[in-house]
Amino acid sequence: MRFLEPIAMMLLAAAQGVAADAPNLTEQYRATANRIIAASLADTEGYDRLAYLCYHIGARLSGSAALERGIAWSAEQMKAAGLENVRVIPVMVPHWVRGAESARMIEPAEKPLHMLGLGMSVGTPPGGITAEVVTVADFDELARLGAGKVRGKIVLYNETYRGYGATAPYRFTGPSQAAALGAVAALVRSVTPLAVQLPHTGALRYDPAQPQIPAAAISPEDAMTIARLSAGGEAVKVHLEMEAHMEPDAESGDVMGEIPGREHPEEVVAMGGHIDSWDVGEGAQDDGAAIMASLEALALMKKLDLQPRRTIRVVFWVNEENGSRGGEAYRAWVGDGLRNHVAAIEMDGGAETPRGFGASVTSPTDMALLGQIGRLLDSIGAGGMDWQGGGEDIRPLMTGGVPGLGERAAGTHYFDWHHTEADTLDKVNPEDFRKSIAAMAVMGYVLADMGPRLGRPGE
Amino acid sequence: MRFLEPIAMMLLAAAQGVAADAPNLTEQYRATANRIIAASLADTEGYDRLAYLCYHIGARLSGSAALERGIAWSAEQMKAAGLENVRVIPVMVPHWVRGAESARMIEPAEKPLHMLGLGMSVGTPPGGITAEVVTVADFDELARLGAGKVRGKIVLYNETYRGYGATAPYRFTGPSQAAALGAVAALVRSVTPLAVQLPHTGALRYDPAQPQIPAAAISPEDAMTIARLSAGGEAVKVHLEMEAHMEPDAESGDVMGEIPGREHPEEVVAMGGHIDSWDVGEGAQDDGAAIMASLEALALMKKLDLQPRRTIRVVFWVNEENGSRGGEAYRAWVGDGLRNHVAAIEMDGGAETPRGFGASVTSPTDMALLGQIGRLLDSIGAGGMDWQGGGEDIRPLMTGGVPGLGERAAGTHYFDWHHTEADTLDKVNPEDFRKSIAAMAVMGYVLADMGPRLGRPGE
Repeated sequence: MRFLEPIAMMLLAAAQGVAADAPNLTEQYRATANRIIAASLADTEGYDRLAYLCYHIGARLSGSAALERGIAWSAEQMKAAGLENVRVIPVMVPHWVRGAESARMIEPAEKPLHMLGLGMSVGTPPGGITAEVVTVADFDELARLGAGKVRGKIVLYNETYRGYGATAPYRFTGPSQAAALGAVAALVRSVTPLAVQLPHTGALRYDPAQPQIPAAAISPEDAMTIARLSAGGEAVKVHLEMEAHMEPDAESGDVMGEIPGREHPEEVVAMGGHIDSWDVGEGAQDDGAAIMASLEALALMKKLDLQPRRTIRVVFWVNEENGSRGGEAYRAWVGDGLRNHVAAIEMDGGAETPRGFGASVTSPTDMALLGQIGRLLDSIGAGGMDWQGGGEDIRPLMTGGVPGLGERAAGTHYFDWHHTEADTLDKVNPEDFRKSIAAMAVMGYVLADMGPRLGRPGE
Repeated sequence: MRFLEPIAMMLLAAAQGVAADAPNLTEQYRATANRIIAASLADTEGYDRLAYLCYHIGARLSGSAALERGIAWSAEQMKAAGLENVRVIPVMVPHWVRGAESARMIEPAEKPLHMLGLGMSVGTPPGGITAEVVTVADFDELARLGAGKVRGKIVLYNETYRGYGATAPYRFTGPSQAAALGAVAALVRSVTPLAVQLPHTGALRYDPAQPQIPAAAISPEDAMTIARLSAGGEAVKVHLEMEAHMEPDAESGDVMGEIPGREHPEEVVAMGGHIDSWDVGEGAQDDGAAIMASLEALALMKKLDLQPRRTIRVVFWVNEENGSRGGEAYRAWVGDGLRNHVAAIEMDGGAETPRGFGASVTSPTDMALLGQIGRLLDSIGAGGMDWQGGGEDIRPLMTGGVPGLGERAAGTHYFDWHHTEADTLDKVNPEDFRKSIAAMAVMGYVLADMGPRLGRPGE
């Protein structure tokens, strides 16, 4: 279950030697961790809240009324769970609106395409764009074709999925790279391993130096169809219409609540995920389950009457999907308090069965301590601990020196559903969700309560 | 790889004793079968034809112009392959038209539902139907509720998928069973193991004794959502609009071509699948791959200069999906020639990797002979042979006493895509498709050429 590399194992062994006189966190916290795990595995309140979020609030894109309802409801839920200092700190967020959109092949055959505009895309001119499609397998092929073959055309990136990290760049930067060669629009094969006519949205990032062209994801099937027709020498022509546009930034906010520390209330462990989602589906795996698991982690500490030495804070960051404004606003709000942030824990890889955590720490001593905490989660298979972790929401904190952790889940089907209509409650297995509560609660509690502090080996 | 039950094994062993003095078909045909298999595994023509069918003809529901284009093109392809007696026998087919359709939840939350009207459904009155939904897990629960709880409501069948055979009855007869209790419409959880917001259509069968109410499939997600909300005590109200209606029967036809037998041209092995499809997707797995594999099986016999003793005929039956008129028309056209049909082979379970055949024969002697033929396909994993087989297209022949066989494929993902927008070319793995050609060709050739005849052990 552990995913330590051999070299990390060696470092860890060395560090364990160094820290031999430090208290063993596994022994110290086993009883408390087992109480937390037992309560988590018996919990139903967290999943009920998640169901409410999915069904009654639903998709919650930055700028939407649903997001604001979700924020207000979340603050109520934090108060109901007995958390203190519940507040919403204001964040101005980008307000992208999809509007009506469609695409269809008009040559060599008439057929509607299964499309979903990319987040932050501009729209087409009224009446749409009709142009021939140039299909490329990757950026190299685009470069080989050059402006001569691309100008005035719609570029289709048909890269076969090779994992999210490897393939998502076509969605991020593909539109501007096509625009740089004179393309009039870009289509991107959905970033997913599963072909079921389900398009996956996600943010693009325009290069300020290039003209902004409209861009949409199409289903893997449609991408393969266009690619095969083109490879067979048939000219493919597509008509694309998108009303997508930006409206003025909207008022929104990060929601947070906490259990103040009993000895060092000024020191904080912040943990959570993002409350915004794309405008399709229910944002269940991405990232509703994470915020509801994080909230329930604190709710269970209250029920178990566990008050750690330091403050533990749950944060629902806003606007992770298309702007990262929530993470930045939280960092700004924290101000000088940053040095009192002892750790930040982000959960944003879905709520399939948890495997452990990745940590942005650099010292073997820290990794050894985290390994001792991880062992507390071995009984639910969530004891893995590896280097590197944490994402968009806590990046500003990590950049400022706060040790960051990212919860890691199995991810077996996560990218089948990610950023689609199918990211819905049913995808969150209640048993896996309960394990996620346990993982977040145990890691958060021990980090907030333990004697040593990560990143300060000398203290 | 073989899927014989123990008891079948015993019968087979007994039969092999009985047939000990009969020629061993495995030895007799090994060289020819290996030539056929080698040619099939090297074939590209069949898949190219399938690509044309999917991309340039596409969905081909009975009554549609696309189906008629597909029939005319198929006859041309049969002629181009060198087949003789290529003809289209006329068949009048039902002409169901989907029209515009939509469904949305209006209480307790507003959300569009992912729906697809069931084939042969009536439409709603103009302006649609708005009613509360009563969710049932199965027919037993519907019966327990009775007319008192069902009258004036929309019934949702939320049966968890337990395999196509077990679950499809909710689609077939659910609407009329709900109507019998006064329901105004029926929704059916899509008959599939995979939840990706993809609704699956398919035919319903109205009970003539009951009022006809409109019926649609919804995605598994939407069904689970409604069921969970209802179970939580919330009233769910849905608005359903469907323009579905019947038009007058349309002219269509079964397409066929053959290699006349060199000794007994009057005796026939008929094999193929259905040329019609639902009006979504491309009918690639269901059943385009089957008819293209069957045609290629004969095309390769021509190329290999193989002319069996009896006539081998490829048939593209029409209207399998919503009427079975093609199978009936073929039976009528055959007339007294039925007794000269030595076998009928249907492929209608998709073109995932072939595993073998099921046969409607009843005698162990016949099964032993088929087992000997099956062994010729062991090298590609398609040597399985089991009792029971054949479907809608050849049922009228089997009812008339013709031994029927159904090709059997792995079916790992078949019902993920079946009757949806996602039944597209990319789902047909070219290697599996080539093995399907081989399986159909070897089975068809040997049945048409071998000395003994199935079902006539005394001759």
